[in-house]
Order: sequence, then structure tokens, then C-alpha cells
Amino acid sequence: MTNKVFFTPGPSELYPTVLAHMQSAMENKIGSISHRSQQFKDIYAHAVAGLRRLLQLPDNYEVLFLSSANEIWERAIQNLVQEESFHLVNGSFSKRFYEISAELGKKTNKFEVPFGEGFRPEEVAIPDTAELVALIHNETSSGVSIPVADIAQYRQSAPKESLLFVDAVSSLPHPEFDYNQMDSVYFSVQKCFGLPAGLGVWLLNERCLAKAHALQKSGISLGSYHTIPVLVEKGRAHQTPETPNVLNLYLLGKVVDDMNKKGIATIRQETETKARLIYDFLEKSKNFEPAVQNTAFRSLTTIVANTRIPAAELNKLLAPYDMAIGSGYGSYKDTQIRIANFPAHTVSQVEALLYELESLGV
Amino acid sequence: MTNKVFFTPGPSELYPTVLAHMQSAMENKIGSISHRSQQFKDIYAHAVAGLRRLLQLPDNYEVLFLSSANEIWERAIQNLVQEESFHLVNGSFSKRFYEISAELGKKTNKFEVPFGEGFRPEEVAIPDTAELVALIHNETSSGVSIPVADIAQYRQSAPKESLLFVDAVSSLPHPEFDYNQMDSVYFSVQKCFGLPAGLGVWLLNERCLAKAHALQKSGISLGSYHTIPVLVEKGRAHQTPETPNVLNLYLLGKVVDDMNKKGIATIRQETETKARLIYDFLEKSKNFEPAVQNTAFRSLTTIVANTRIPAAELNKLLAPYDMAIGSGYGSYKDTQIRIANFPAHTVSQVEALLYELESLGV
Repeated sequence: MTNKVFFTPGPSELYPTVLAHMQSAMENKIGSISHRSQQFKDIYAHAVAGLRRLLQLPDNYEVLFLSSANEIWERAIQNLVQEESFHLVNGSFSKRFYEISAELGKKTNKFEVPFGEGFRPEEVAIPDTAELVALIHNETSSGVSIPVADIAQYRQSAPKESLLFVDAVSSLPHPEFDYNQMDSVYFSVQKCFGLPAGLGVWLLNERCLAKAHALQKSGISLGSYHTIPVLVEKGRAHQTPETPNVLNLYLLGKVVDDMNKKGIATIRQETETKARLIYDFLEKSKNFEPAVQNTAFRSLTTIVANTRIPAAELNKLLAPYDMAIGSGYGSYKDTQIRIANFPAHTVSQVEALLYELESLGV
Repeated sequence: MTNKVFFTPGPSELYPTVLAHMQSAMENKIGSISHRSQQFKDIYAHAVAGLRRLLQLPDNYEVLFLSSANEIWERAIQNLVQEESFHLVNGSFSKRFYEISAELGKKTNKFEVPFGEGFRPEEVAIPDTAELVALIHNETSSGVSIPVADIAQYRQSAPKESLLFVDAVSSLPHPEFDYNQMDSVYFSVQKCFGLPAGLGVWLLNERCLAKAHALQKSGISLGSYHTIPVLVEKGRAHQTPETPNVLNLYLLGKVVDDMNKKGIATIRQETETKARLIYDFLEKSKNFEPAVQNTAFRSLTTIVANTRIPAAELNKLLAPYDMAIGSGYGSYKDTQIRIANFPAHTVSQVEALLYELESLGV
């Protein structure tokens, strides 16, 4: 039994209602129902309708369910890139998408800035040959965001035929995207949706579908059970090609319901309030400082700070108070901390964390 | 709230202890822990050790976790077949593996018998050029099994360099395989392991790893995050490349514990007892008959019968008694039923089902 509150950047704290929904899932034996039954189709349709409402998603977008953001990276390249992709890189996850494209035999280009830095659209030259342009809205490793308003500028400078991808793995539902300025967005449920891991959600428009069809027509293999055409066809029938993670789909629909009841405006506002509390604390602290210098690029959902004390030490000090924060990513493990600011985290939990960090004199 | 007992062939009845394990998972916040933590590595190692013991798996086999059997089919072809695969086909799932190979651009060969029929090893000519030979131990759509003892004959007649694959999606842990006569076996957790769907388990030996390395060395792309070399490397460190379905991995380890406590011999014996009860009932019934004529080929875990009354009608009659059976697969939806006989189903539950089917006069 643990009462620990997880401020780790995903898997993270579960949304407060997950426990009750899991109990009702077990009582209703959701883990036993057929994935070809009407009951499953209703669960699928419910999750999609809820997400459309929460994200204010235009009708020309499909909502697809895969296993992870890793899988989405791979399927995106496999289904949408014949020759070449282009990537903004400023941390481990944006770099990984870039690497995956190369591992699948594509020509890859990147515009890279150091870990912890952001991008200025006017400095980014996107090659005319890029078929997929990968933006990283929120780099979970470094805590750097792309301001939502900048995305339209990338759309302007990207080749007209290219597909603009936005990684919002650890930021949605906070960012208020203009989905007309992009072609695809994706996220993982174990970040801001406060669910157990095992599901990646892929939003893509009709231009992605058309490109996949065109590649397929030219004789290129898009894969097998998880090609975009198959996923879209099955998805429109509220089905998946394989037996999916039914339980998580059920929980997603329920949590999205709860988020809709709360209202996206309130969720956004609370996210901003909590982010302000955390950054204010970091600015004043003598042991921490925000890792991202430029305030315009600071993530609101995965907040990274330089630290004098490694996260492992801090977590030992926080353990008696039932709290855990994230360590820095990769080689920043001991010199940075990461604090998740997700919808599952309440204002009072954040206040308690900051109070303890201050009281500990660290 | 439902007390329905699911005799559907997967997703199916959850193993009786899953409810308690899920409760303890939620109390211990397994859904929130980092997939890079020692706690996760322990969960991973525990599931692997339990499976090794339950299945009596030799040390030269790796245990890998993917998202579904569909994914395992695709990764197998992508990682292990340069030119050509060969498939035994006698139903929808064995056919799907064959199709996936073609969709990935490989040359495919098959030996096909009609739905509901089995294979005689002496009649199967495996081409010398086959790199992967796909056997279907248990065809979930038609209820046909390959007798375990026949597998050695396929190994004899298959090209020496070829990799012998055994689909045990809906039969393990019952079959007592000689793992030295094959190179890979795989199953889904929502069948005989009585878990929620969202995890495919892939067992493969050092010959598979060597072949994947050889293809990679020759410049062939094996994919990206889920190549065999990456999965094996991460797996040996009790990790996965992506954030996996942590909760299901935890539940798998716990259920396998319970199965080991019960003992594989008892599980096998009970499976055989229940299968005999069901087949005896079907033989005597005037409304059903076993769909598989040859008793040597009858599945013990997914039992298929021809029916005069469609499953949808039967399930309406069974609903007041809190029971559900599976319909026939695909075009057999109304003319066949499928009864799952998994470790989660107790002898008394099976007796109750047969009693009701008899009492209903059907």
C-alpha cells in the first residue's frame, strides 16, 4: 500500500477517478468482453467522441489507438515517408523520432539545438524534399516547448506537400492547437491523461491518409496490421485490427468524460496556475534553477530544473512525505530534476511538494 | 455489475485471482511507477522467471513482451525472413500470418487444408527455400490442433536452416512442448492466461537472434524500436524499449505465480478433464456436434461445435444463468459455437454450462 504522489513525468500520478473506474471495469468484467462485440464498439466510440470534444478536434481528423508513442513514430515513417523526413531536435525524444526514420532506411535531416534550448522558426530551414516535418511541441527530456503560435510559421515555411507532425506526448490536452496548421498530433495516455501505460493516441488528417494510400499504390509496403489505411478503416467501424488494450481504452473514455465535465478551460487554467507556482519556486530557490533559460520556451507540463542535489537524494528526503519527483533524463540524471504538472496533480499537491522542498532546506 | 462467466475464446474469463491482484496493483500504484525503475525491473524479471518455470522453458530461449500476437507475426517476418516463409493454414489465424508475410513483401508458400481439418506431417512438403516455417498448434477459429508429438516430424522435414514457429496463442500453458524441436512459440495473455488483453508473449531461441543479426548485418532494416536484437538486449536488462503495458506485466507475473502454485500438471489434467466433459456432451447432443471430425486433431482449449441454433440465440437463453459462449468465427458465426476451456474456467463452471445447455433442450 502506498500513498505516494508521483510527480514523475510519466508514468505518473493516475487521474484521481481512475481507481473508481478500474473498480467498475472489474465489476463489469470489461477485461473479458469480446473486442468484436457491440459493447466494445461503444467503448471505442465513446473514447473517440470524448477526445474530439476535449481537444476540439476538427472532423477531418481521425483518432487512432496504437500501443505507444514509439509505435506511432515507426508507423508514421513507414506509412508516410518514401524518401525523406525532417526533424526539429532538442532532446532525447525528438532525437529518437529522427533515429527511427534512419533505422527504417530513410534519408533524414534535422535542425538541432542544444538540450534545454528552443527553436526560432525564422532560423529553421526546412528542405524542399522533406515529406514529413516533425515538430516537438513538448520535449519530455529537457522541458522545452514550442509556443503554440509558432506552429503556423513552420507550416508556412514547410514544403506545401509535406505533412506537419506535432509531438504532444506529454502536453495534450493543455495546448490549444490550431489543427488546421498541422496534419498529425500524438500523445501517450500515461502522461497528461493520468492512465496506466500501454496506449498511444494518434490524431491524423485526410492528407496523411491520402499520402499512405499513394505510397501503397506505388507498391511500397506500409506494414501489415497497423497500416494507416487499415487503422482508419477499422477505426471508423469502432474496431482495431488486433485485440487491443480494451481496459485502457475503457479507462481513457471515462477519464476524458471526467475531464470534459471539469472543462478544458479549467484544466488549462489550473495547469498554468501550477506551472507558475513551480517556476516561481525554482526562480527563488538557492538549490534549483529553471533549466530552460528562455521563459518563452518553458514547458508548462514537464518542468525541468538544474539541481545541486541529485533526484535520488531528494526522493529519499521526500519519501516520508509520500512524494516523488522525476530525475533528469539520461546524462542529466543527477544534475537535473523533472516535475510533472499534469491534470492529475492538484494545486494543493503541488503546493505541498513545494512546501516540503522548501522546508527540507534544499 | 455482472456475474457472467465468459466461455468466449479470448478475451475470456479472467483468472480468478486477477481481481485481487488488480486491487493490490492499484493500492501499490503500479500504474504510476517508472518503467526505468528497479521496481519495474523486478516486476519484469518476476514475470519471466515465473513463465520459465511454468512452461519448463530451456535456457536458450528468450522471453519477450510485445503488444499482441498480430505484432509478433509482423516482427517475426520483418526480423527473420529475407525472401520466403512457409505456412500451415487451416483457419483464419494461420491464414492471417501467411497474409502478413505477403503484405511485408515476402514470397509466401502454404499448405492449406479446409477449415476444421488437421494436417498429416507426411503430406506436408516444405520447400527447401523456406526460412520460417509457421505451424499452428491451436487454430482458434476452427478448433483444430496439431498433436504435440507431430512437431518433431515437421522439424525433420523442414530445411535445416529454417526457423520453426509454433502458434500457441490459445493453447499455452497446456501443451507440453519439446522446445528443442522448435525455434519460437508465442501466445496472447487474454486467452489461457486469463488476463486483460494488451500483451503478446514471444519465446524465441538463439537461432532466431542469430538470424536477425545476420539480416541486419546484410543491411536489411528490421524495424526500429521492436527489432529482435533491441528487444533481447533490453529484455536481458529487464526492460522494454518503449513504455510498456506495466500493469499487465505485473498481473501476468502474479497469475503465473498462482498457476505455479497450482502446478502445471494439475492445470493440464483439469484442462483435459473439462475438454472430455465438453466433447462427451457435444457427441451426445442432438443440437451440437464436434466440428472437428478427427478426434486426434481436436483442440482441448478452444472447442468448436456445429450448431443448429446460432450462438446469438444461445447466449440469449444462457444470459439469465450468467453464462456466455463464443460464436463461430467469420462465416461460421451462426453455424458454429466456440467454447473456451482455459485455466480460468473451473470444472464446476463447465459442468454448469453443460447442464444449462442440456436443460434448455438445445
